[in-house]
Amino acid sequence: MVVELISVGTEILLGNIVNTNAAYLAEKCAALGLACYYQTVVGDNEKRLGETLQLAKSRADILILSGGLGPTQDDLTKETVAKVFGKKLVEDARTKEKIQEYFKKRGKTITDNNWKQALVPEGAIVLDNDNGTAPGLIMEVENKTVILLPGPPGELKPLFEGRVFPYLQIKTDKIIRSQVVKICGIGESMVESMIKDMIDRQENPTIATYAKTGEVHIRVTAEADSEKHALKMMKPVVHELKKRFQENIYTTNEEVTLEQACVDLLLANELTISTMESCTGGMIAARLINVPGVSEVFKAGYVTYSNKAKRKVLGVKQSTLKKYTAVSAKVAEEMAQGVSLLTKADVTLSVTGVAGPDGGTEEKPVGLIYIGCSVKGRTKVMEYHFDGSRMKIRESAVVAALTLLRQCVLEYFSEITFGKGKNKKN
Amino acid sequence: MVVELISVGTEILLGNIVNTNAAYLAEKCAALGLACYYQTVVGDNEKRLGETLQLAKSRADILILSGGLGPTQDDLTKETVAKVFGKKLVEDARTKEKIQEYFKKRGKTITDNNWKQALVPEGAIVLDNDNGTAPGLIMEVENKTVILLPGPPGELKPLFEGRVFPYLQIKTDKIIRSQVVKICGIGESMVESMIKDMIDRQENPTIATYAKTGEVHIRVTAEADSEKHALKMMKPVVHELKKRFQENIYTTNEEVTLEQACVDLLLANELTISTMESCTGGMIAARLINVPGVSEVFKAGYVTYSNKAKRKVLGVKQSTLKKYTAVSAKVAEEMAQGVSLLTKADVTLSVTGVAGPDGGTEEKPVGLIYIGCSVKGRTKVMEYHFDGSRMKIRESAVVAALTLLRQCVLEYFSEITFGKGKNKKN
Repeated sequence: MVVELISVGTEILLGNIVNTNAAYLAEKCAALGLACYYQTVVGDNEKRLGETLQLAKSRADILILSGGLGPTQDDLTKETVAKVFGKKLVEDARTKEKIQEYFKKRGKTITDNNWKQALVPEGAIVLDNDNGTAPGLIMEVENKTVILLPGPPGELKPLFEGRVFPYLQIKTDKIIRSQVVKICGIGESMVESMIKDMIDRQENPTIATYAKTGEVHIRVTAEADSEKHALKMMKPVVHELKKRFQENIYTTNEEVTLEQACVDLLLANELTISTMESCTGGMIAARLINVPGVSEVFKAGYVTYSNKAKRKVLGVKQSTLKKYTAVSAKVAEEMAQGVSLLTKADVTLSVTGVAGPDGGTEEKPVGLIYIGCSVKGRTKVMEYHFDGSRMKIRESAVVAALTLLRQCVLEYFSEITFGKGKNKKN
Repeated sequence: MVVELISVGTEILLGNIVNTNAAYLAEKCAALGLACYYQTVVGDNEKRLGETLQLAKSRADILILSGGLGPTQDDLTKETVAKVFGKKLVEDARTKEKIQEYFKKRGKTITDNNWKQALVPEGAIVLDNDNGTAPGLIMEVENKTVILLPGPPGELKPLFEGRVFPYLQIKTDKIIRSQVVKICGIGESMVESMIKDMIDRQENPTIATYAKTGEVHIRVTAEADSEKHALKMMKPVVHELKKRFQENIYTTNEEVTLEQACVDLLLANELTISTMESCTGGMIAARLINVPGVSEVFKAGYVTYSNKAKRKVLGVKQSTLKKYTAVSAKVAEEMAQGVSLLTKADVTLSVTGVAGPDGGTEEKPVGLIYIGCSVKGRTKVMEYHFDGSRMKIRESAVVAALTLLRQCVLEYFSEITFGKGKNKKN
């Protein structure tokens, strides 16, 4: 079955608010196995909303509208839907009562325009709204399911979760499941070329790649008659992806972020971490501290943007700064080792570089970043060249640092296992 | 003139990402005085994108498409636009060179699919993308302006700002100018109620409020026959806003962020700053270090997420942690004072709190945050209660900290000026 989302609201068209409702509803519809080919945003305008509804009903089975159910004159979603589907609006006694209750509870006077909210298209299922005065509505009409929800997310989400999701779950006749494979350390076009044969062959399951800053996510989606069957269909595809990308895959779990994967890796190996950041200025620490429960592994973070701070806080040598300059592999190394001594953390990450827009030279251009990672005294330093704005360069550096952290920890343990010695310095 | 926004991407239809590009573009188009009646999201599908384009060109003068310009096979926005408007794709030598440069700079191999990005519809204006490999494109065709932008916000925004906005500004036949007034420290509904009379009366110039995390931006927009006239029309409105919001206005400059305003304030008063963060984990330092040239004022940042780090790094007393717990006004105070002693910075900011989702108690619920700010030894601590996810709570805390920083520095100097003494502790 095909669903189409229609968001009604001039404030979205003007960019006053971000349309988070559409993302929420889209994700829920995908989980229900509904195909969604279009989302439309249209203003509080009867003619244009009417045309949007006509088009949507010509190409979808389920129409979900959000917004425009309020008490003011420019709220006209319900009225327009009723008109397009030839339904009269009738007063719903229960909703009228609920509105009275709502205002009484808050000690407010009901203004006349509020009674408009007690009118519903005849035959509609009325969904009580416990967080506002406009009820949700479900209409079964002309072989379509039309769902109307209030715009405020605090009202829309509980109504969808509690009433609409179960309603749609019964209606849908197929099962769609998807599985994500999250990759770091390889660019999107390289990922794509590594699975070109699989993409060319794809049918069901389908395969799609999504580029994030410094990461690529591959989504495998299967359609089947049962959940079990869908999972079975995806299994060999995911297996093949694992074979091709190996340790560049940091997770196959939808919820797990790169920072979560790093923290999990540290926890699993009982390692603590400290960070020492120059141009990223705390962004690596901030990413790690996104992860609830990180206090188990995170010892301390330092932001030493100036040379003076690098010397004073971390004991980077004046002579090193002078000889190699602050943006150098040597300084990244001394930073990683300095913070290791200072905090006794098992693993340390250090970043120094030129984030721009000024401060670049021919020798040390904007975008040049050195990242050091020390695992139990073994320090590795890598050189990177990133492009873009100051923010973009810093974000790229953060992802590169987390990627290097994973790589160094994994290498450390694999080399111990294979007896390559544990104090080799790269 | 009428603009229509088309966002291309299956990841938006699946709810994997929130369509922030549409909100960004909508706000900019409104500032340009363009009317926008529809926004559409469509997947990476030639047939459906083609139909969406046909519909959009029947009802708008300017079409702005975002997404689907990448190197992979399912990126087909450019190909579909060329087909719908009957244009051939030709290789753009300059873009080819730029792609070569991009990969060379990164020491990476160019995979074959990347050359696809050097193909452009014949006659199109090519907009160099400094943050990625897919260029932006502007086509003047069939009496329409069709603009193609890459999907990643870090690429789309600089291209729009630098190239598309000025291009459209020349095209629009009316002169529309707008001026922003950026406010911190007051919530959106309070801001709205403080200017309700102005909003009710508005006509030309118009007034609109935009809520950002912890900030409210008011945009004043005037339409006139000349730039001079537009500016003259806005002047009394902006003057009235300044009168009403006073020091809660941190800038009236489009480009200036809250962190920039903070750094400027520190620079102007020759003050240095250090930070000490627990639950925000480096986010405040990272925001400050967004500002180029911050090295003049930023001394050092510390991330002390655990109690142990709070004691070891900053000398917060064990007895204080025991008596008041880590999330307390007293600990925030000792953190702000500790970092002041440690780094000899004139101004220090400290944050401690419960970011959740776990760790909350009845007494110290999730969302409770204490922020300390010390200016030359005068320390002020504020208690905050924020709602939402771990990330949302942390982001709110960062903005609150920067807001408090401004307030404390301004207070310090106003009290010195008015002779209220300089060592009073609040």
